[in-house]
Amino acid sequence: MSGNTFGTLFTVTTFGESHGPAIGCVVDGCPPGMALSEADIQPELDRRRPGTSRHVTQRQEPDTVEILSGVFEGKTTGTPITLLIRNQDQRSKDYGNILETFRPGHADYTYWHKYGIRDPRGGGRSSARLTAPAVGAAAIAKKWLFEKFGTTFKGCMSQLGEIEIPFESWEHVPNNAFFAANAGIIPKLEEYMDALRKDGDSIGARIDVVAQNVPVGLGEPLYDKLDAEIAYALMGINAVKGVEIGAGFRSVTQKGSEHGDALTPEGFVGNNAGGVLGGISTGQDITASIAIKPTSSIRTPRPSIDKSGNPIAVETFGRHDPCVGIRATPIAEAMLALVLMDHALRHRAQCGDVKVDTPQLR
Amino acid sequence: MSGNTFGTLFTVTTFGESHGPAIGCVVDGCPPGMALSEADIQPELDRRRPGTSRHVTQRQEPDTVEILSGVFEGKTTGTPITLLIRNQDQRSKDYGNILETFRPGHADYTYWHKYGIRDPRGGGRSSARLTAPAVGAAAIAKKWLFEKFGTTFKGCMSQLGEIEIPFESWEHVPNNAFFAANAGIIPKLEEYMDALRKDGDSIGARIDVVAQNVPVGLGEPLYDKLDAEIAYALMGINAVKGVEIGAGFRSVTQKGSEHGDALTPEGFVGNNAGGVLGGISTGQDITASIAIKPTSSIRTPRPSIDKSGNPIAVETFGRHDPCVGIRATPIAEAMLALVLMDHALRHRAQCGDVKVDTPQLR
Amino acid sequence: MSGNTFGTLFTVTTFGESHGPAIGCVVDGCPPGMALSEADIQPELDRRRPGTSRHVTQRQEPDTVEILSGVFEGKTTGTPITLLIRNQDQRSKDYGNILETFRPGHADYTYWHKYGIRDPRGGGRSSARLTAPAVGAAAIAKKWLFEKFGTTFKGCMSQLGEIEIPFESWEHVPNNAFFAANAGIIPKLEEYMDALRKDGDSIGARIDVVAQNVPVGLGEPLYDKLDAEIAYALMGINAVKGVEIGAGFRSVTQKGSEHGDALTPEGFVGNNAGGVLGGISTGQDITASIAIKPTSSIRTPRPSIDKSGNPIAVETFGRHDPCVGIRATPIAEAMLALVLMDHALRHRAQCGDVKVDTPQLR
Amino acid sequence: MSGNTFGTLFTVTTFGESHGPAIGCVVDGCPPGMALSEADIQPELDRRRPGTSRHVTQRQEPDTVEILSGVFEGKTTGTPITLLIRNQDQRSKDYGNILETFRPGHADYTYWHKYGIRDPRGGGRSSARLTAPAVGAAAIAKKWLFEKFGTTFKGCMSQLGEIEIPFESWEHVPNNAFFAANAGIIPKLEEYMDALRKDGDSIGARIDVVAQNVPVGLGEPLYDKLDAEIAYALMGINAVKGVEIGAGFRSVTQKGSEHGDALTPEGFVGNNAGGVLGGISTGQDITASIAIKPTSSIRTPRPSIDKSGNPIAVETFGRHDPCVGIRATPIAEAMLALVLMDHALRHRAQCGDVKVDTPQLR
Repeated sequence: MSGNTFGTLFTVTTFGESHGPAIGCVVDGCPPGMALSEADIQPELDRRRPGTSRHVTQRQEPDTVEILSGVFEGKTTGTPITLLIRNQDQRSKDYGNILETFRPGHADYTYWHKYGIRDPRGGGRSSARLTAPAVGAAAIAKKWLFEKFGTTFKGCMSQLGEIEIPFESWEHVPNNAFFAANAGIIPKLEEYMDALRKDGDSIGARIDVVAQNVPVGLGEPLYDKLDAEIAYALMGINAVKGVEIGAGFRSVTQKGSEHGDALTPEGFVGNNAGGVLGGISTGQDITASIAIKPTSSIRTPRPSIDKSGNPIAVETFGRHDPCVGIRATPIAEAMLALVLMDHALRHRAQCGDVKVDTPQLR
Repeated sequence: MSGNTFGTLFTVTTFGESHGPAIGCVVDGCPPGMALSEADIQPELDRRRPGTSRHVTQRQEPDTVEILSGVFEGKTTGTPITLLIRNQDQRSKDYGNILETFRPGHADYTYWHKYGIRDPRGGGRSSARLTAPAVGAAAIAKKWLFEKFGTTFKGCMSQLGEIEIPFESWEHVPNNAFFAANAGIIPKLEEYMDALRKDGDSIGARIDVVAQNVPVGLGEPLYDKLDAEIAYALMGINAVKGVEIGAGFRSVTQKGSEHGDALTPEGFVGNNAGGVLGGISTGQDITASIAIKPTSSIRTPRPSIDKSGNPIAVETFGRHDPCVGIRATPIAEAMLALVLMDHALRHRAQCGDVKVDTPQLR
Repeated sequence: MSGNTFGTLFTVTTFGESHGPAIGCVVDGCPPGMALSEADIQPELDRRRPGTSRHVTQRQEPDTVEILSGVFEGKTTGTPITLLIRNQDQRSKDYGNILETFRPGHADYTYWHKYGIRDPRGGGRSSARLTAPAVGAAAIAKKWLFEKFGTTFKGCMSQLGEIEIPFESWEHVPNNAFFAANAGIIPKLEEYMDALRKDGDSIGARIDVVAQNVPVGLGEPLYDKLDAEIAYALMGINAVKGVEIGAGFRSVTQKGSEHGDALTPEGFVGNNAGGVLGGISTGQDITASIAIKPTSSIRTPRPSIDKSGNPIAVETFGRHDPCVGIRATPIAEAMLALVLMDHALRHRAQCGDVKVDTPQLR
Repeated sequence: MSGNTFGTLFTVTTFGESHGPAIGCVVDGCPPGMALSEADIQPELDRRRPGTSRHVTQRQEPDTVEILSGVFEGKTTGTPITLLIRNQDQRSKDYGNILETFRPGHADYTYWHKYGIRDPRGGGRSSARLTAPAVGAAAIAKKWLFEKFGTTFKGCMSQLGEIEIPFESWEHVPNNAFFAANAGIIPKLEEYMDALRKDGDSIGARIDVVAQNVPVGLGEPLYDKLDAEIAYALMGINAVKGVEIGAGFRSVTQKGSEHGDALTPEGFVGNNAGGVLGGISTGQDITASIAIKPTSSIRTPRPSIDKSGNPIAVETFGRHDPCVGIRATPIAEAMLALVLMDHALRHRAQCGDVKVDTPQLR
C-alpha cells in the first residue's frame, strides 16, 4: 500500500536505496516447479547495469544477484523468491551538498515534503538504480511466460532527443550501447552524446517495447485493463512522462474506418490497437512507447532554493546518466513482462482454461 | 482483483451493464462527517450524460442517482456509500446481429475469448456508459478535496481529429457541446461533426485535464507513483490510447537544462513536471493529456469474421457517439479526482501531518 | 480497505444499514458460464431471515433478492454480480433514545468514538442484518464449489447457554427453529427460550460448521492459512467471541501421539486437524466451532453513561433476537463457503492443476 | 496474495525457509522519522530464539538481525525496512527420510499436494522458524505504538497440557523458560517436560496475550473487525487451533445481563468484551487466548503412508520443540502488535483525528 509492491498475484516487493548496503526484492506468487537459478536472472541485470559504455553513469556495479529463498534443488517451490544485490560502489560524499538544496526536476523536493526526512545518498530510494530488482524479478516472469505461451519481449530506443532512429532489425539492438535497432545511426548517436556530456547537459528519449505471442484474454475489463496496467507500469519507471499503446496519440487524428484493425480468417490486419481491445489482450503483439525526460542531475547550474527558501544555483556533480533513456529499454521490457505475468495468473484464477469455438487470431 | 474496483483506500466498486436493469457503485473509505446528498452528485452526472447534443449518442438517459447507503441525516457516516442509477432507455434489439460477429476495434472479440460468454446488449460491461458510476463517485471525492485543500478540477478538449483547439479560457467550456475552451472554433467543430455523421464514420480527440491547489506530498515513491496511477486511471477510460503528464512526449527532445522546472522563493518556474516529481506531487498544477481513439461502432462496413471464423462485412447500427472524446472531459476529471482522493488518504495513513521548515511552493 | 469487502479473488463488497432503504452486495470474481438466478440464492436468505419463529426477532423482512448485474440469459458473465435487498419493515422510532446513550456490550460506543457520527436506526451498519448480503453471496460460492468439487456445507447449534445439544443427525436441522441436529431436545430449548424472553434477558450459544468434499491444497502457507482465514471469517460474524478448528481448545491437553491424525492407505484416522495442516486443506472435512455471546440489546436495565458522560440506566426496547446464535448457523456456513471459494480461485491462480503421484486421502 | 504478506497499510512480507541461507522480511508503510536500529529489534528476537533452555529445540541460532534498508542516520525514512537473519545452524541431513513420507499432523502432506514439490529441510517454509521475521517486524510496530499511544504488550502461558498456571504477576514471565506468570509452578512444569521428552512425545498449551493503552476506535466495522483480524493473526501462528477474545467460549453460557460490560463515568466494569465491541476497540485492554496443539514431529512411531501410498511407521528425529507453546508467547504478542499497528494507520487514513465530546473510557 506504500507503493513498494508491484502486482497483485505475481507480486514484487522491492527494497533498498542507491547507496545503502543492498537492494533487492521478494517475488511472491511464482508457480511452483519451474527450473530457476541465478543464471536465468543475471543476464537481464547485466543488460541494465551501469558502467558498460562511456554514455552512461560510470558507477561500477556488477549487480550480482543472490537467490535467498524460494528455490529448492533448482526448482521454484511456490514460496517467496528473494533476490539480493549488494551495492558495491557507493561514493556518498559526491552528494554532500544535495541535502541542503533541491535539484530542479528531481524528487529531492517532494521526498522532503512528503516524509520530512530523506536519504540524499545517490537519490536514496528515488534513484533509477531501484529498477534493478524489478528487472531481476521480470527475468522470472519472462521465463515462465516463455515456457507456458512462447511469449517473448523486445525493445529499442526509437528517438534520442531530435534524432529519430528508424527501425531496421531487432538483431542490431544487442550490438550497440543505445539499444538501437539500427546499425548505421550509431556514430551519429555517439557524437551527439559526446557533445552533450561536454556541455554538462542531458537529453530525453523515446523507447518502444513489444511483447509477442501473448495469449488472448489477459486483462480485466473495467479498472485493471491490460493497457491501463501497462500505462501504470511504464509511467512508473523513473523519468517517464508519456505512454502510448498501439497507435497512441496518432489515434487523435484517425477515423474509425482507419483505426479499427480488420479481422480476417488469416488474422488481424494492422495493429492500431497495440494488442489490446476493451482492456483485454487480442493475441496480436502488445506494443507500447514511452517518453523519457532528460536527467535532472546535470552539471549546468540551475536556479533553485535551499532548505531555508533562499535562492541558490545548483550544479550536480557525482556520476549520472546524461540520458537515462539509454538504459531504459530492458527496464521497459521488464515492466511489461511483470504486467503480463500478473494478468496471466489473474486470468486463470477467474476463468481457468476457457474454450471458445472461434479461431484465435494473431 | 477482477478489475471492477478502483483505488486502495478510497475504493469505488462499480457494477452493471449498458442495457441491464441498473448501473452503480459502492464507494468505500469516504471520511465520515461530510455533508452529502444527491444534489452534490447529480450535476457531475449531468455533464457526462448522453443525448445532450446532436453530436453524441441519442440514447435518452436521465442518469438519476439514488444514494442507497452511507449517509445519515445528510452526512457521511464512514460506511459504504452506494450510488444506484437505473437504466431507462434500453433498446437491446439494436444489437441483435452483434452477437455473431466482431466489430473491428471493439471489445467484442476479447470478451468472447476471455469469458466464453458475453452480454452483447450495448456492449454490456465494455460500454462507456460504465464510466457514469465513477463520475458519480468522483463527485464525492471532489467535494472532500475541495473542502480539505481547495483542490479544483478542470478539463477541455484540445484537439478534434486534425483540428487543434487553442486554449482561450476555461469559461467557454460549459457553453458548448465539445468542452472546448474556445468559443470561436465551435462552428468549425460542429460542421466537422455533421459531415462525419453523414459519412457514418468516427474520429479521435485529445483531452487535457488539470487539478489545481493540490497539496505537496501525494503519491508513493516506487510503484504507486502519482503519475503512474494517473496514467493507469486515464488509460483505463474507454478508448484512451495515450497519456502524457506535464511535458509528456515533448520531453523526448528537451535538454535537462530546459526541462527541469526552476525553483525560486516565489514558486516554480514552468511546469514541465506536470506537478509530479519522483512520483510525488509538488504542489504545482497536475496536468495531463489523453489521446482518444475513434469509436469502433460505425455505420461504414468493415471486414471482420463471424463466430465460425468466416469473413463478413460488419456495419453497426444502433446509437453511438461518433466521437467518444466529446463526452470524455468530465470522465477524465473524475478519474484524476479519484486518484488524488485515494492518495490523500494514503498519505495521511503513513505520514500523518508532516511538518517541514521549507516553504511549500506552487 | 475500510472493511466492507470480503475476500481477495472472489470478493463480496457489502453495503447498507439495518433501517436504510436497502442492503446488498457486489460479488466480483465469479467464474463465467455458471447458471444462476434468484432461485439459487433466495433459499439461503430464507434460512437466515428474521421473523420465522417466536424465538427470534419479530421484524418482518421477506429479504427478497434482486440480481442487478453480472448475469446474462441465466448465466454468469464474469462481471460483477450485484444483489439488492430492499428493507421493508423499518421502525426507526423504536430506537429513538439510543442515540443519546450506549448499550453495554454494544457497538454504540465504539462507532461513536471511531467516526464521530453514527446511524442509530437498528444499529445502522453494526446490525446482524448485514450478514444477509454475505449469505446471498455465499449461495453463489456454494453452487460453484458444489458443481466443481461436490463440496457441501452443514451446520448446527451444539450448545444453547448451559444446554449441550448432542449431535444425532443432520436431518433434524431443517426441522426446528434452532438448527439443532437433535429432535428430542427441542421442547427443552423452547422452554428455555420462553423463560428467557419473559425475563428480558439474552443468552449465548455454540455453533458447529462442516465443509465436506473439500479438495486438498487450498490455503496459503504463511499468513493466509486456510484456518487463519476461517478464523477471520467466523470471528467477524456479529457477536462471535471464539473460534476453534478441529480439536480446538482440546488440543491444549492432547499429546502429539494422540493429536496427529494417522494416515493410512484408506484415509485419515480421526480429524483433530479439522481438515487443515500447515494452513492448507488436507481433503478431510473442514470442521469449526464458534462461541456466540448473548445479545447486548436486552430489556433488563443496565448501568451505562449518556453522551455527556453521566451515569444512566439503559433498557432496550424494539425487536431483538434474545439469542443471536439461533440464526447464526446459515451465516457461519456462508462465511466458511466464502473462504473456500476464495482459496479455490487463489489456488488455481498460482498452482493451476497440480498433479502428484500420491493418492489423495479423505 | 500468495499469503506471505501480513497487513494492509503496515505490511510485512516475509521470506525464507528453515534451512535455506537466510530468512527475513520487508516492512512497508512504517511512518517516517522514528528512531530505529537493530538494538530495538534484537531483544524481541532473543525472546523467541531457540536453544535457550533444555525444554525447547537445541538448534543454535543467534538470530542476529541486520537492517538492510529504510533507515538513514538512525531514523526511518518511510521507505521499506528490510530485516535479514542469516541461518547458521542448518543440519539438513537430519531430515533425509522425511521427503518420502508424511508426518501425521504435519504440513508435509498438504505442501506436497498443493505445490507438487516441497523443501523438506526442517519443514522448509512451514517451520515455526518463520515466525522470527514477524517478531522482528513487530518490534518496530511496538515501538511506534508505544511512542504514539503508550501501548504495551504482555503475554504468558496459562496452561501446559493438563497443568493450569494461575496468574500471579507479569514480573515472573521473563524469569522462567515457560513465560509463566507464576514462580512457584516452575518446578512442576520442568518435571513434566523432562518426562515428556524422555517419552519422545509432545504436548499442547494455552497462551494469553494482552495489549494495554489501546486507543478507542481501531478496527473496521464489517469484515476487518479488529477481533476478526486478531483471530486471523493468532490462528495463523503455527500449531494454533483455537482463538478467544475476551470471555471467549465462556460467552456461550453467559446471559446478556452478565456479559455486557457496564459503562460508568469511571470506566468500564469488567472486560468480557476483551476490548472490542462491534469489531472496534473500546479503549479497554485487548485480551486474547490461543490453543496450541502438540508438535507433530515426535520420536514416537506413528502410522502413516509413503509417497507411493504404502503404509509405513514414521518416527521423527532431528531437533524439535516438544511443546511449541513454550516459545509462542512472544510470537502471539508480535502478531497482536502487527494487527494494532495496521489498524492504527487504517484508522487515521479514513478518520483522521476524530473529536467527540463523550469521555473516553478504559
